[in-house]
Amino acid sequence: MKHQREILRGVEGYVPGEQPRMANVIKLNTNENPYPPSPKVIEALRNLPAEALRKYPDPLSADFRAACAERYGYPGPEWVIAGNGMDELLALAVRAFVDPGDDILSTYPTYTLYETLALLHGARPVLVDLDENFQLTEAFFNTQARLCFLPRPNAPSGVCPPHEAVERLCREFNGIVVIDEAYVDFSDDNCMDFPRRFENAIVMRTFSKSFSLAGMRIGTAAAQPPIINELLKVKDSYNLNVASQAAALAAIRDYDYMLRNVAKVRATRERLAAALRAMGFSVPASQSNFVLAQWSGTPSAAEIFAALRGRAIIVRYFPVRKLENALRISVGTDVETDALLAGLREITGQELV
Amino acid sequence: MKHQREILRGVEGYVPGEQPRMANVIKLNTNENPYPPSPKVIEALRNLPAEALRKYPDPLSADFRAACAERYGYPGPEWVIAGNGMDELLALAVRAFVDPGDDILSTYPTYTLYETLALLHGARPVLVDLDENFQLTEAFFNTQARLCFLPRPNAPSGVCPPHEAVERLCREFNGIVVIDEAYVDFSDDNCMDFPRRFENAIVMRTFSKSFSLAGMRIGTAAAQPPIINELLKVKDSYNLNVASQAAALAAIRDYDYMLRNVAKVRATRERLAAALRAMGFSVPASQSNFVLAQWSGTPSAAEIFAALRGRAIIVRYFPVRKLENALRISVGTDVETDALLAGLREITGQELV
Repeated sequence: MKHQREILRGVEGYVPGEQPRMANVIKLNTNENPYPPSPKVIEALRNLPAEALRKYPDPLSADFRAACAERYGYPGPEWVIAGNGMDELLALAVRAFVDPGDDILSTYPTYTLYETLALLHGARPVLVDLDENFQLTEAFFNTQARLCFLPRPNAPSGVCPPHEAVERLCREFNGIVVIDEAYVDFSDDNCMDFPRRFENAIVMRTFSKSFSLAGMRIGTAAAQPPIINELLKVKDSYNLNVASQAAALAAIRDYDYMLRNVAKVRATRERLAAALRAMGFSVPASQSNFVLAQWSGTPSAAEIFAALRGRAIIVRYFPVRKLENALRISVGTDVETDALLAGLREITGQELV
Repeated sequence: MKHQREILRGVEGYVPGEQPRMANVIKLNTNENPYPPSPKVIEALRNLPAEALRKYPDPLSADFRAACAERYGYPGPEWVIAGNGMDELLALAVRAFVDPGDDILSTYPTYTLYETLALLHGARPVLVDLDENFQLTEAFFNTQARLCFLPRPNAPSGVCPPHEAVERLCREFNGIVVIDEAYVDFSDDNCMDFPRRFENAIVMRTFSKSFSLAGMRIGTAAAQPPIINELLKVKDSYNLNVASQAAALAAIRDYDYMLRNVAKVRATRERLAAALRAMGFSVPASQSNFVLAQWSGTPSAAEIFAALRGRAIIVRYFPVRKLENALRISVGTDVETDALLAGLREITGQELV
């Protein structure tokens, strides 16, 4: 193609998990929350005045950022930026802090968008293998780059590196450390205080998982004000529409509603992990709203994936190194989880102990 | 700042027109439509199910793109991409087709975001002066670059370059030609057929103006499928949330509602331009929903701007070369327009002829 940039030749964009259009599917493939968002979010959207649609939204999402700063313990809104989903904020971090040709550090395996973002920017993705327990290695700490993406908990394992490891990274790494806390509301602890202690730390959150708002595209990043200022420079002028700003504000103000849903998901996660282990799957201790079910028996993980699909149960299978013997399964409702387990028992011929 | 990219040093992000927070302002500064969006849009937003908020949206906005292809006369949705506002699509065009260090051609004056986007990408903005009638010059046609931004109608003059000039540009220009038709629904003609005739033409539209949906961030770009494919590569995975997709679809399906609002705005525009001319302003024939009111008398344009503001009437004043003697005034309702004219008469001491 005549006008194509050299760096985009052969690069594909990010391919998101399938959003099946058929009804009555048990959808456990993209880590959505099985419970609906707060009724106050729905009410906020219902009450959007026509006047608000007609006019430009607040380009800086001031009310939402102020609410986040208060909730997350920052001195003011200048410590926070709002994004059109956390994916936008990940891309902004690359554009704000990485020159084409620079290295971007991450782990393998991890969220594949990091690599895609590096390639689309003309940067070089450097992926250092996690160890067999999905933990960071010395080789990782010994690698320098312009920016590092560290998901905590890690995807797709659900495992959290210990706090001390993240502290060491922030201390020893020369560049920006993006701590991707997309799933952290399902974890025992978080790193939201790191930006106050480390000038190179950015903590990102999404409202897609714990707040049940994947459809509305809401993300936040917290960092010291000079870092936030660089991110603001490179964002689109009006990145959050008036509906997502209203939904975001209502959601963060109804924080307890989110916490109650999270407690339900965590309880189901523990039950799911125990049942999978009883069937012979190896399941790392997940701090997320999904589990990685590792399986080396017959039928193969790929065959189990296909057989579940035949039963209208969709999980995620990554046909790549280190994951070819695993299924990533989102934590659904208890009813969905029971259907999944029943399907797995039939397919694998295993019974619960 | 330690982590700052060299290209961002000294670059400011785009500064949008003011969104005043006080009530009872006559707001004629950011070219919003004075009439509300279609009731069918409001209904679509009211009826958004909680289930749609919980799940990821369609990453490709398939239904909306299909509706656009049909409305705009393209063979299929692969000729269209949807954006989180047209601003996102302008940024995507830069990222898809311009390497850092390349030139980006545009005119002077024009929409200042083009220059900002070039600088944020590390590209070089090349701005060639329009002539005194805001038309393209030979110097412009003689300039080559990787990409060209051509707003038609031009902002902030409201003037359209003739079709033949745009055809010549597409034919003679080596790079991508982005025809920014943000305001074209208020014009006598458009270039929506250009992508079928020119492999380098991209026609962009926004729903912020004619469809009264600035708050919802909806834009479209039409081009040949290989061009659209490059734009899709570099966009965020889920760039339109479920609310903007629902609003966009309802709006394009209620096209006649938009046309009726546009007819009202055009009628008011002609009355406004005539009244301004009668007061001694020079007003280029606008094909948009704003007029550029040029004024070389006393008080100065800057003083008139400030005096209007004191009367809670906000228009746009650009303190830059070629525009220091002009006000850009959005076309409001008839009542708003009468209030503006009364204010101007008081401030300038002019009477309507």
